[in-house]
Amino acid sequence: MPIVDSTGAEGASADETLSATVVGASGFAGGELLRILSGHPNFDLAGATSREYAGKSVGSVHPNLRGTDLRFSDPADLDSVDVLFAATPHGVSMAQIDAFYEAADTVVDLSADFRLNTAEQYEEWYDGHDAPEYLDEAVYALPELHREELPGADLVAAGGCNATATILGLHPLFEAGILDGDGSEQIVADVKVGSSEGGATSSEAGSHAERSGVVRPYAPTGHRHEAEIEQELGAEVSFSAHAVDMVRGAAATCHVFPSSPVSKGDLWSAFRGAYDEEPFVRLQSGGSGVYRYPEPKAVAGTNYAEVGFELDPGNERVVVFSAIDNLVKGTAGQAVHAANLALGLEETAGLDFQGLHPVGSP
Amino acid sequence: MPIVDSTGAEGASADETLSATVVGASGFAGGELLRILSGHPNFDLAGATSREYAGKSVGSVHPNLRGTDLRFSDPADLDSVDVLFAATPHGVSMAQIDAFYEAADTVVDLSADFRLNTAEQYEEWYDGHDAPEYLDEAVYALPELHREELPGADLVAAGGCNATATILGLHPLFEAGILDGDGSEQIVADVKVGSSEGGATSSEAGSHAERSGVVRPYAPTGHRHEAEIEQELGAEVSFSAHAVDMVRGAAATCHVFPSSPVSKGDLWSAFRGAYDEEPFVRLQSGGSGVYRYPEPKAVAGTNYAEVGFELDPGNERVVVFSAIDNLVKGTAGQAVHAANLALGLEETAGLDFQGLHPVGSP
Amino acid sequence: MPIVDSTGAEGASADETLSATVVGASGFAGGELLRILSGHPNFDLAGATSREYAGKSVGSVHPNLRGTDLRFSDPADLDSVDVLFAATPHGVSMAQIDAFYEAADTVVDLSADFRLNTAEQYEEWYDGHDAPEYLDEAVYALPELHREELPGADLVAAGGCNATATILGLHPLFEAGILDGDGSEQIVADVKVGSSEGGATSSEAGSHAERSGVVRPYAPTGHRHEAEIEQELGAEVSFSAHAVDMVRGAAATCHVFPSSPVSKGDLWSAFRGAYDEEPFVRLQSGGSGVYRYPEPKAVAGTNYAEVGFELDPGNERVVVFSAIDNLVKGTAGQAVHAANLALGLEETAGLDFQGLHPVGSP
Amino acid sequence: MPIVDSTGAEGASADETLSATVVGASGFAGGELLRILSGHPNFDLAGATSREYAGKSVGSVHPNLRGTDLRFSDPADLDSVDVLFAATPHGVSMAQIDAFYEAADTVVDLSADFRLNTAEQYEEWYDGHDAPEYLDEAVYALPELHREELPGADLVAAGGCNATATILGLHPLFEAGILDGDGSEQIVADVKVGSSEGGATSSEAGSHAERSGVVRPYAPTGHRHEAEIEQELGAEVSFSAHAVDMVRGAAATCHVFPSSPVSKGDLWSAFRGAYDEEPFVRLQSGGSGVYRYPEPKAVAGTNYAEVGFELDPGNERVVVFSAIDNLVKGTAGQAVHAANLALGLEETAGLDFQGLHPVGSP
Repeated sequence: MPIVDSTGAEGASADETLSATVVGASGFAGGELLRILSGHPNFDLAGATSREYAGKSVGSVHPNLRGTDLRFSDPADLDSVDVLFAATPHGVSMAQIDAFYEAADTVVDLSADFRLNTAEQYEEWYDGHDAPEYLDEAVYALPELHREELPGADLVAAGGCNATATILGLHPLFEAGILDGDGSEQIVADVKVGSSEGGATSSEAGSHAERSGVVRPYAPTGHRHEAEIEQELGAEVSFSAHAVDMVRGAAATCHVFPSSPVSKGDLWSAFRGAYDEEPFVRLQSGGSGVYRYPEPKAVAGTNYAEVGFELDPGNERVVVFSAIDNLVKGTAGQAVHAANLALGLEETAGLDFQGLHPVGSP
Repeated sequence: MPIVDSTGAEGASADETLSATVVGASGFAGGELLRILSGHPNFDLAGATSREYAGKSVGSVHPNLRGTDLRFSDPADLDSVDVLFAATPHGVSMAQIDAFYEAADTVVDLSADFRLNTAEQYEEWYDGHDAPEYLDEAVYALPELHREELPGADLVAAGGCNATATILGLHPLFEAGILDGDGSEQIVADVKVGSSEGGATSSEAGSHAERSGVVRPYAPTGHRHEAEIEQELGAEVSFSAHAVDMVRGAAATCHVFPSSPVSKGDLWSAFRGAYDEEPFVRLQSGGSGVYRYPEPKAVAGTNYAEVGFELDPGNERVVVFSAIDNLVKGTAGQAVHAANLALGLEETAGLDFQGLHPVGSP
Repeated sequence: MPIVDSTGAEGASADETLSATVVGASGFAGGELLRILSGHPNFDLAGATSREYAGKSVGSVHPNLRGTDLRFSDPADLDSVDVLFAATPHGVSMAQIDAFYEAADTVVDLSADFRLNTAEQYEEWYDGHDAPEYLDEAVYALPELHREELPGADLVAAGGCNATATILGLHPLFEAGILDGDGSEQIVADVKVGSSEGGATSSEAGSHAERSGVVRPYAPTGHRHEAEIEQELGAEVSFSAHAVDMVRGAAATCHVFPSSPVSKGDLWSAFRGAYDEEPFVRLQSGGSGVYRYPEPKAVAGTNYAEVGFELDPGNERVVVFSAIDNLVKGTAGQAVHAANLALGLEETAGLDFQGLHPVGSP
Repeated sequence: MPIVDSTGAEGASADETLSATVVGASGFAGGELLRILSGHPNFDLAGATSREYAGKSVGSVHPNLRGTDLRFSDPADLDSVDVLFAATPHGVSMAQIDAFYEAADTVVDLSADFRLNTAEQYEEWYDGHDAPEYLDEAVYALPELHREELPGADLVAAGGCNATATILGLHPLFEAGILDGDGSEQIVADVKVGSSEGGATSSEAGSHAERSGVVRPYAPTGHRHEAEIEQELGAEVSFSAHAVDMVRGAAATCHVFPSSPVSKGDLWSAFRGAYDEEPFVRLQSGGSGVYRYPEPKAVAGTNYAEVGFELDPGNERVVVFSAIDNLVKGTAGQAVHAANLALGLEETAGLDFQGLHPVGSP
């Protein structure tokens, strides 16, 4: 799918400069926001907050940013900016949302705090919600599903990384009517994720000695990302996640059993129809060479998602593959992509890194 | 499940010594056979053949065996022994089976050549079979399913590693009638395997630069191990394999949807009933600590399989986990375990290594 | 060291576009050239040759370049371009140099063929030289040592990756007179490198199973990169390389024993004096946080080198650390950096990627 | 070097059973002691203490030991045993030594508390010593250097893992007079170690995301293991350690410059003379195949050390390689080996695991 630059969005123009602050900038997602925004043609990075590292240079935490002069500031001192990106742990944004709006016209939240549409969902999947009055105006950030709602949005909520991978893989099947979400079809999402998903805090399970070389089931049932997957797709998905030995990346393998038989041609049509115009989705399904299906390595460091599929004729199963960098397309890149659309900037601005080959466990 | 030593099998006694040859000893499976047999109280390692390395010390290929004096010999010169272990590529054993029997009374084959029961299966899944007259007498090596048939067997066929992991995970559900194999239930096996499965030959896809940090679908449909899984379980299984970044290990996550609701108690009963007396199966399902579910790391280097499960109440899904070392429980250890039973030796002889903690990607 | 853009070089201007071909574009270094040049503001990628993959898309080999339309062409059909980058195995460029010059005014060679100054060196360290008449005009690409000679150069020879790491670490000590190269001082370079250094060809030693988790000495003495290290530094260096488990990266730890005592202040002065104006060298020596000294992870994917040092007062040893991405600063990035200077372009053009955090074994 | 079983040591006989307790059994070294002792023919594991996990099964912490019934007990309740192994953090053993002796006749300490010979050394390198009166009777555990002193020893102090690797590599050169330790020769030890050296506690630097794929200098000068290296070798060694991406293993590359020229024959004589009778040292120096020099992978999980060397004729440098498993030969295996000798048991008892091939980052 060729990169198609957006044309003529309303709002900001391509050469406008907007000021931005990253709240919670010392974590992995915050660091990626700093990296992307500092190379973005339309953003001027005005602040990067961190309670723990206030006063220190961002390069002391994020070694790739050693060349910049930026220092962490205290989150209590938020300057007025055009856009505030919040990369804080779950619960902070819903508590701080009024302060965020006081500081900025547009808020882009990378936590789970505004992803779900209703207070009831937060009661069911989380510990309730402190600011349910904002849920209506929040737009789920994935442009491949919410392109129409993003322009002009004041509150954008980036999706979860596992959810993003799963949704992008299954979305074309629902769009094309191959799955109908009526509950009669079994839909399994078996997801493999890297260690950066756990964030920058240390734990025994996340130590190098214990986590190297793992295939480790975690939250095999009841994972909170199920809530947003089902919200976005309109169907229940049987979701299980596994930790594997990579740092960045999320790969979803979805095994689905449509009610009616499908052909490979149906599948090609479904995926092409869904993503042909999307600048950050690549369809990779079979072929020759080493990388025949979507792999996290092929998109590491980039805002691309790769999707692909295979048809198992014997048992009428469709196997769908989806791969993203959990910190970029799954978090910070998705947030900037959505912000570009919300603010009327060039859609792909700041997100032009193509990735590396070869790359280890990026 | 406590280790229960077998008692009083017919045939050899616990202090008997049998001579053994490993054919195809320079590969990964062959090397593991050499390691296990050289520490086995009842086997005297009489030969180790390798066309490529004939005349060289086994330690020049397998660095862990540098302390031994054994040298590779030419496979054309097979001395008479009690037991011949064949760790050759697919197709060799079926072509050489008469020569193998000339050299030994008991043949234990680690390739796919005698795993399937009928010539028809070989027509469907492989390229046919050269010696179909031996298929009837071959016993599939997995003691957890074929304990009764192994004693006295002349031809033992070790199962495939992915198949072993999948079969051990699902077997209790069929035994207990939770699954009935009538085709109405969706059974997905999503398997993750290490690089040693590819064997000791080099390839671009298997190079360190390309394979490090991967989550790579391969044979997402139509994998040949499906044939033996379905043979052993009596039901069709939707199987997909993924390469992940470990050297040893195979982990199967099976997502199954029984026709009737099951409780956690039903599942505990099923797994305990199937494996309580099995010396090499450990049930690991939940609890505290880092290793809550089966993981390849917990069994690396050993002949243990770990199995466990979780119940997803919302969608009536059972998630089954199974983990083995693909080269031990999945290949060479399984072969020795079956040989012990076939020959009336102590069941666990030679297989007492408990594994290491911590361990990387073993 | 702040990024200082070059000013007013002769030749091309910053908005000029030059055509470029990459010969040998299917290898790892060639792929990196394609990536960097396709994002470079002054280059138009006119060709990418590969004998093996002629006719195929570059994305079929380099998955990060799947979005581009470029296809590999036959190296026998070289179109005329402004600049030809050769990323071919040792020996090809010296045999093809006339053809290269026929196709292009400027040749940038990434092999070892033009790194050494004299035919005698090639007799001693390689198998002689086919085109010694070109050795005089070739400029060793490292801008930190050859900034003055690069503008206008017709033939640029990128240094070896191990040599680059070693040279950048030790150069300040020679510049400042802390080492004098008279042979009385012991200088040890203990280098650790990733698997991408071996290139895109497969081998048993380079397979994932055999190379994962290694600390493997190779060429512990007599490594060919010693030749260029000694040429560039004017002193003999005791060099040993080790393979370690990363894909990209080269890290040199140099242990040196100056004839006269030095202080930490002397060392700071030496390193600052050498690199304060260099846009792609960062001095990282001590401090707090996880990344206190140079590490390949901190520069992975980028054209940066990190250098640092420690003083061992007890034994008057200086320990120097140096870290690069072997495929960027150690190969393709160095080549583009040098080409920018040779052609009068903005020095840092095309090389603005800042790297990622966190990153596995990139 | 063939495995030579010790014959006729005084004290215990080969079929005697001694009771043993492991104090500090929840850490990595403690877990390895539990593993080795539970398979040892002469030890009966009477206790395993852990303040944090008292009452829990040892398998809940060490998944490889899930098959055993042993539970952690409180360290305050030490039963009387024949031998007490202490695997506690630095400082605990010197504080508890009287209690240890009350509980056991023989104490084997795996911490640094009794490695050095004098209180002065502890003043210089640590924070002094609480029980200096025991230093005289403590024997440094390395049998290759202290075979004569171990029989009958009451207090055995296992060496540090980095020190063990370095000492075993350099010892033959001092024994043979190739190095004389008079301070005129430069001796550099550049060591690479795995993440298990950091123990079972979590830290940001040791998290999987930050530690994967590293080449990270730590304690580049002034490492405490220098103290024991210099004590055991009688010469100053310039020591630097690097974290690399493996879980188990320590590899020392020593670069030494003898005062007088040496030949390869001299080196072979020195190494053979030092280790020909040693059951746990293998000389591996050159040859063909993948594993030509010592590598941690070749000895992972075992009590073997591999040593080897290369001669750099140009600069009269000897490069010595040494590789061990830091948790076995570098800690728990060394302790059991020394205990076997101290107690008059079969020297190699309990230490017969040969290691695996292939193995990742074990």
